[in-house]
Amino acid sequence: MVNRKMYRPAVTALAGYVPGEQPPPGKYIKLNTNENPYPPPREVVDAIKQAAEGPLNRYPDPIANAFRIAAAEALGLPGPEWVLAGNGSDEILTLLVRGFVGEGEKLRIPFPSYVLYRTLADIQGAVWEQVSFNDQWELPAEFSDAAGNLKLALLPNPNSPSGTVVSRSQIVELSDRLECPLVVDEAYADFADENCVSLVLEHDNILVTRTLSKSYGLAGIRFGFLIAKPEVVAELSKIKDSYNCDAISIAAATAAMKCSGWLAENCRKIIATRTRMSVELEKLGFLVTPSHANFVWCRHQQIRHAEIYEFLKSQQVLVRLMDFGESGDGLRISVGTDQQVDAVLHLLKSYLS
Amino acid sequence: MVNRKMYRPAVTALAGYVPGEQPPPGKYIKLNTNENPYPPPREVVDAIKQAAEGPLNRYPDPIANAFRIAAAEALGLPGPEWVLAGNGSDEILTLLVRGFVGEGEKLRIPFPSYVLYRTLADIQGAVWEQVSFNDQWELPAEFSDAAGNLKLALLPNPNSPSGTVVSRSQIVELSDRLECPLVVDEAYADFADENCVSLVLEHDNILVTRTLSKSYGLAGIRFGFLIAKPEVVAELSKIKDSYNCDAISIAAATAAMKCSGWLAENCRKIIATRTRMSVELEKLGFLVTPSHANFVWCRHQQIRHAEIYEFLKSQQVLVRLMDFGESGDGLRISVGTDQQVDAVLHLLKSYLS
Repeated sequence: MVNRKMYRPAVTALAGYVPGEQPPPGKYIKLNTNENPYPPPREVVDAIKQAAEGPLNRYPDPIANAFRIAAAEALGLPGPEWVLAGNGSDEILTLLVRGFVGEGEKLRIPFPSYVLYRTLADIQGAVWEQVSFNDQWELPAEFSDAAGNLKLALLPNPNSPSGTVVSRSQIVELSDRLECPLVVDEAYADFADENCVSLVLEHDNILVTRTLSKSYGLAGIRFGFLIAKPEVVAELSKIKDSYNCDAISIAAATAAMKCSGWLAENCRKIIATRTRMSVELEKLGFLVTPSHANFVWCRHQQIRHAEIYEFLKSQQVLVRLMDFGESGDGLRISVGTDQQVDAVLHLLKSYLS
Repeated sequence: MVNRKMYRPAVTALAGYVPGEQPPPGKYIKLNTNENPYPPPREVVDAIKQAAEGPLNRYPDPIANAFRIAAAEALGLPGPEWVLAGNGSDEILTLLVRGFVGEGEKLRIPFPSYVLYRTLADIQGAVWEQVSFNDQWELPAEFSDAAGNLKLALLPNPNSPSGTVVSRSQIVELSDRLECPLVVDEAYADFADENCVSLVLEHDNILVTRTLSKSYGLAGIRFGFLIAKPEVVAELSKIKDSYNCDAISIAAATAAMKCSGWLAENCRKIIATRTRMSVELEKLGFLVTPSHANFVWCRHQQIRHAEIYEFLKSQQVLVRLMDFGESGDGLRISVGTDQQVDAVLHLLKSYLS
C-alpha cells in the first residue's frame, strides 16, 4: 500500500505548481501564458518533418551538439561547451536547483516574481527566501546580502509579472556581492533592450537561462538552455537525464537558432503591439507597468481585477489574474496579434465605460 | 566564482552515468544500446508531420491526456488516470526517486542490473543497496527484507544485462513483504511472455514503468510512462516539470500506442532473430543466458570479452562490454536485423575459429 507517509515529506507538503489555464485550441483568445501569438519560422516546421523521416529508433545525441553549436553562433559565445540544452528552461531551472541547493538549504528569489521558483525549492525540500521589489519594481541591494546556507539566487530578467528589468550594471553588482551563483532567467530577454549573455563570459558566478517558448514561438517543442562557463555545463550535465532532449526537438531548435532575421522581425512586431496596447490600456484607466517583455502587467484604478478577469473569460478571452497578497493583485496580459489585442481592447472599452 | 564547494556534495561526488556509445549514424552496426533495429510504424511518422503543422507556439497538454487515453486502452487499464507520461522512462525513474527517496535514505536494486539506478540514487544523495542475483539469475527473497529508511525498490524485469525475468508470482511475494513501493521497470517487457501491468490494479505498492524506446522503435522521441494507482500518479505529477512532454512526441507516442498489430509483428521478428542468434552464439563457444528481452547476455568460455569487444569495434560493430566486478564481465549484444546479426556472427566465426 503506497500511503502518504511513503513519499518524501517535501512532496506531500506540495500544493504543486499550477500553470496558466490551457483550454482546447481555438476556443479562446489566449493571452494568459505569454506564448508567442505567431507560428514559428517555416524552417523549423520543415526541420521537424525532415527529422520525422530520420532514425527515430536510435537514441538522440545526448548533448544536442548541433543545437549547441547553432546557439553559440547565434549568441556570440566562444563555443558549444558554454551551452547546456534542456527539455524547456523549466528543466534547466530544475537542474540548477538540484545541482546547487540541498534539503534545508536556501534559494533567493525576488517578489513578486515567477511562482515556479518556489515550487522547485519546495520539491527539493529547500527554503526559499524572497526579497521584495520596491514600488518602482527596483530590486534592493539586499538581494545580494550574505546569508547562512544561501546556495542559489534566481532572478528573472525581464521579470514576470512586471515585465521590468534590472540593469546589467546592477546585475554585475549583485553578482559581485553574492557568495553563490546568480541565475538570470532570460525567458523574455529577446523583447528587451539588453541582456546578460556577455556577462557570463566575464563574471564567473553569472549564469543565464533561455527558452525557445517565447520569442521563437516554440512553447510546444519544450526547449531551453543554460549559458554558463564550460565547467558549470559539465558539472550540471552529470545530473540531467542521459537523453533529455529528443531528436525532433533538437532538429527544430537547431533550425530556430539560425533564424535571426525571423526573430528580429517577430520581436519588432510584438514590441510595436505592446506599445500600442499599453497606451490604450492606460486610456481605459489601467496603470500599466512599462514592459520589456511580451506581456504587460496592469492594474485598474476602479474595478476589481477578478471582475475584469471573469468578464473577459466569459467573452472567451483568457488573461492571467495574479494575486501577490500584500503586494496586491493585477492582470498580466500577453501581447497577442494586433487583431487579438484589438478584440480585447474593444471588449474592455465596452465593459469599463 | 562558481567553485566546487558551491554544488551539492552529492553532485561533485558523481562520476556521472555513461550511456552506451552513440557514434554518428551509419558508420557502425550498432548493437550496444538495445534500440529497435527497425523504423517505427509509418503512422507515427505521419503523426509527427501533422503535429509539425499544429500550433507549436502553444504549450502542449501538461498531462498528455491523448496519450494517456491511448495507453490505457492499449494496456487494458481502467482509465487514463492510471498513466503518468514522461520524457522517456528515465524521467519517470528520476521522478520516482525524487518522490520517494530523500537524502540519506535507501533505494534497493538488484545486481548486476541497470547501472542508471545507482546514478539516480547518487544524484539524490540517497544510498543504494544491492541484492545480488544468484548464478541462475534468480532473485533472493532478501530483496524484500525490511530495512531502516528503505524507501523504494527498483526491479528491471526483464533485467539488463541478463534478459532474465522474475516471475509474476515472485513479484507479488516481494511486494507483499516490502514496506515500500516496488517499481517494476518493464522497458523490455514486450519481448517477454508475461508482464506485471495487471498486478498494478490488484497490488497497491506495485508500480510499472514502460518506455517507447525499445519495442516501439522510438528511442529518438523520448517517451516513457508510469502505470500506477491514480493517487500515485497525482502525487508524482506535482514534482514533474509542468510541460514535461512536447506536443510532437505526445502526438507520436499517441499514434504508436494505437499500433498494436505493428508491435506484435515487430516483437515476433525480434524474438525469432534472438532465438537464432542465441543458438549460433552457443555454437561459437558462448554461454548465452536465455533472454526475454531484445538483447542477449553472453560470456565466452575461452576468449577475453574485452578482446572480442575491441575486435568487433575494429570491424565497425558496437556491442556493450560490461564489467560487474566480482560477478564478472560479459558482452550484451542487442538483437539487430537478421542481416546485421548475420554480419556479426560471420565476423565472430572468423575471429574465434
